[in-house]
Parts: sequence; C-alpha cells; structure tokens
Amino acid sequence: MGYNVEIISIGNELLIGKTINTNAAWLARKLTFLGFNVKRITTVGDLIDEIVSALRESISRRPRIIITTGGLGPTFDDKTSEALAEALNRPWVVNNEALELVRKKYESMGLKLTQHRVKMAKMPKNAKPLPNPVGTAPGIMVREKGIIIISLPGVPKEMKAIFEEHVEPYLRKVRPNMYFCERIVKVKGIPESSLAPIIDKVMKKTSRVYVKSHPKGSEGELPAIELHIVSSDTVPEKAERNIEEAIETLLKLIRENFQKFQIE
Amino acid sequence: MGYNVEIISIGNELLIGKTINTNAAWLARKLTFLGFNVKRITTVGDLIDEIVSALRESISRRPRIIITTGGLGPTFDDKTSEALAEALNRPWVVNNEALELVRKKYESMGLKLTQHRVKMAKMPKNAKPLPNPVGTAPGIMVREKGIIIISLPGVPKEMKAIFEEHVEPYLRKVRPNMYFCERIVKVKGIPESSLAPIIDKVMKKTSRVYVKSHPKGSEGELPAIELHIVSSDTVPEKAERNIEEAIETLLKLIRENFQKFQIE
Repeated sequence: MGYNVEIISIGNELLIGKTINTNAAWLARKLTFLGFNVKRITTVGDLIDEIVSALRESISRRPRIIITTGGLGPTFDDKTSEALAEALNRPWVVNNEALELVRKKYESMGLKLTQHRVKMAKMPKNAKPLPNPVGTAPGIMVREKGIIIISLPGVPKEMKAIFEEHVEPYLRKVRPNMYFCERIVKVKGIPESSLAPIIDKVMKKTSRVYVKSHPKGSEGELPAIELHIVSSDTVPEKAERNIEEAIETLLKLIRENFQKFQIE
Repeated sequence: MGYNVEIISIGNELLIGKTINTNAAWLARKLTFLGFNVKRITTVGDLIDEIVSALRESISRRPRIIITTGGLGPTFDDKTSEALAEALNRPWVVNNEALELVRKKYESMGLKLTQHRVKMAKMPKNAKPLPNPVGTAPGIMVREKGIIIISLPGVPKEMKAIFEEHVEPYLRKVRPNMYFCERIVKVKGIPESSLAPIIDKVMKKTSRVYVKSHPKGSEGELPAIELHIVSSDTVPEKAERNIEEAIETLLKLIRENFQKFQIE
C-alpha cells in the first residue's frame, strides 16, 4: 500500500484564520524526512460529522498512515476521539490505560477526576493511548484495515512532544528505505517564465530530481526566483549526487542563455 | 445553498512542509469577516489527478464558493488551470482576454510571448481572467452549477493583490447579511479542564456565542488559557452584545468557583 500519509487538521480556529496551520507543516516536514509521502492535508472544524467525513474519505484512499491534530482536550468542542470511534464503527469507551495516565496527571496537580477530565481517556475500542509528556490529553493510536491512525493534540508543544517520544520511534521502524534530500539555489535577474524551459531540461536530464521554482521578487527589483531542488533515493549519497548533477546542468544552461544574472 | 466556502491549496512545497500555509489562513480570515463560513481547507500536490479529485470532491459538497491557490505559473508543475478544465469537463483553451493581459506584462519588460508564457493564458472555456496587479499569471473565475470557482496564484503577494482588487469587491456583492465579531480573554491559574464546565454554562446561557479555549501555558508556569469568544449576527452590534454578555457570565462564574486566577 505504499508509504502515503494523510494529515487531518481539526479546529474552527484554522477555518476562521485565527491560527495558521503550523502543525501540518511541522508534521509534513518530519514525515518527508522519514521517507514518507504526504499526499493530502485536510482541515475541518470541530463538528463530529465533518471529522467523521474527513476520516472516512481519507481511509477510503488507503494511505499507510493518517495523523490527526486537534480536538483531544476536555472541552465540549473536543470531538476527535468520539468522531474517530464513529468513523471506525467502534464503541467509544473509557480506555483504562489512558484513564490511569489522566488520573496521575491531575493527582500531581492535586485535582480529582471530573466528567470533563475522564472524557480525555475515552477512545475507540482497542486503541492505544500515547502518553502526553507536557499536557494532559493522551494521543491515540489505532489500526484499521492495515492503516495506522494517530490522533495528536492541537497544542503545538503537546503535538510535537507526543510525536517525538511515541510516534517517531514507531515510524522509524516502518519507514521506507528512502531518503529525502533538498537544496535551494537563488537566481536573480531572470523571470520565472524564462527559467521554465531550463527547468524542463534539467528534469529531463536528471530524472530522479524535482525542481520547483518559487518567485520571491518584489516590484521594481530584479526578479528573484528560489529554486528548490529535491531528490529521494534508497541511498542518501545518490540523492545528493542527483541534486549536484541537476545544479550543474542548471548553472550551465543559465550561463549559456543569459548574460545578466546573480546566483546565490 | 448557504454561504459555505472551501479553500484548496495546491503545491508540493506545502506537503513536504517547506512552506507553511499562510495563504489559507489569510483567505479564511478575510472570508470569515465577510460573513462566509469556511467549511474545509484541502491541500494537495502539483499533480493533475490530485487537483482534479480535490476539485470534484469539493464541487460535490456544493459550497457557494471554492477558492484555489497555487499552480498558475509558467513552469511544468503549474497545473491548476488544466486540472480545473478537466474537473469541469471543459476544453482548456487560450483565453484571449488573459492572453492580452499576459502579452502586455511581458511587452513592458521587453519580452516576447513564449510557449511557457502563453500557458498562463490558457483557461477552462468560458472562464473570466482576473488581472494580476503585481505578477504575470492572471487569476481565473468560473461558474459551475451555481458554484463560483476562483483560482489565485500561490505567491502570497499576488494572491492577496488579486483577491483584494478583483475578488473581494465581487464577494461584497454576494456576501450574506452576517457579521462576525470576536474577543479574546486570557485566564491564568485555572486548568483548561476546570474551565470546561464553565464554558458549557456560558454557551448554554448565550446561545449565539461560541467559546473556544486554547491552552497557551508552559511547563512549570501557571496554566494560561486563551478564550476566543466569537459571535455572528445580522446586526454587528448584536453580535458584540452577545459577546459582552458571554464575557460577563464567564467572569462571574470564574469568580464564584475559583480563588486564585488572573484575567487579561
């Protein structure tokens, strides 16, 4: 089933533009450098039906891994766990291991379990809680039809801590034998549309390389184009060599075709 | 068909985590304050099939408006316009109005039309080009089954310029009679799970208000919770009043239930 990953970001704050989705970018970068292929990022609000739809649609595309962020806390609009149970057609039950994690957290603060706190220990049946080193809501890991589904909190510090302590070690075991490399070359003084045919040639010559141009220039200045050159290979040195070769071809073609330019 | 909007963000750079999706947040905020309801944000890579799928799925959910960003430039991997034509089952043709816009841009730089530049004038049949005040690729506006589909470039400066000059004036004409208001209250010293039952009560009392809590605290410090209180109404003053009432109830309940806390 390949090594595709989908990310589902959950939270009204993302849909009203209050919060920029830095979680998805952070996860995407981690997953890319682990060799996975992030295929889609979907953002939905704090509504059960919306989360269930996003999960079911994602499952139907059969990625290897689905990671959700957001909606695991104690308030009324934290609905990810319940939606996950519904999407999987499993009962939503108190997970004893999770309850123990939550109970200990609040005990250390001198607080008792309440209905809103117990809620953070409710998970789809047969889920595995992922301890939260810096917050109270545990993450959730569950398997469905060979797909690993991982739910993480939306608070960036908590999301990152659970990912690094409990998800990344697991992903390192199931990751593909594939290494992602990248380099950036900045070209000033040549419009993107003039570089376009050169990029076509570079990619034809070094087939395992992908070159993407990002215009960065401002009005009145010289056009500034950032070229992002990436390659993946089972041998990291080979990916590096592909990139080196592509940059050589690129610089050669630029020198042959243009007089005035700057390269950084 | 309501006032739902979907945003589709296109670009490998978003899926590999090189770029944080600030475009989607910027658009979402603009749309929210115009009274629209952003229902979903989907990010896909620079592949025709992925873009076509995302577009068709979005169309099938029948939002009022779909806005895409990215993939309108001159390079091989700018595929949004072609994918849009395919998703709508329309021919992908040179749009004469768009060609004139592109030709003039390059003429002013002393450059001729090339195959890669003409590509930026190709659009689905019966589309309307949106002039780009700060770049070369025009935006695209097209109607399908009563849905307005707008494609904007991925370069933030170009996306914002086209939106503000050509999309926003149009949206102001079709926007709902609905005003979005928001306020932030910061509460220190009370854990989120202790505020949860209070938030439930506030929302029960002032039904047209939505209160979302965002933990912002660091380890070792007092827990710091940001409460984001929003309300929408046909009369902006009424939305403001709802928020005021909710904050009053909130502060009253906090004072009744806790001794030590700070409010900002």
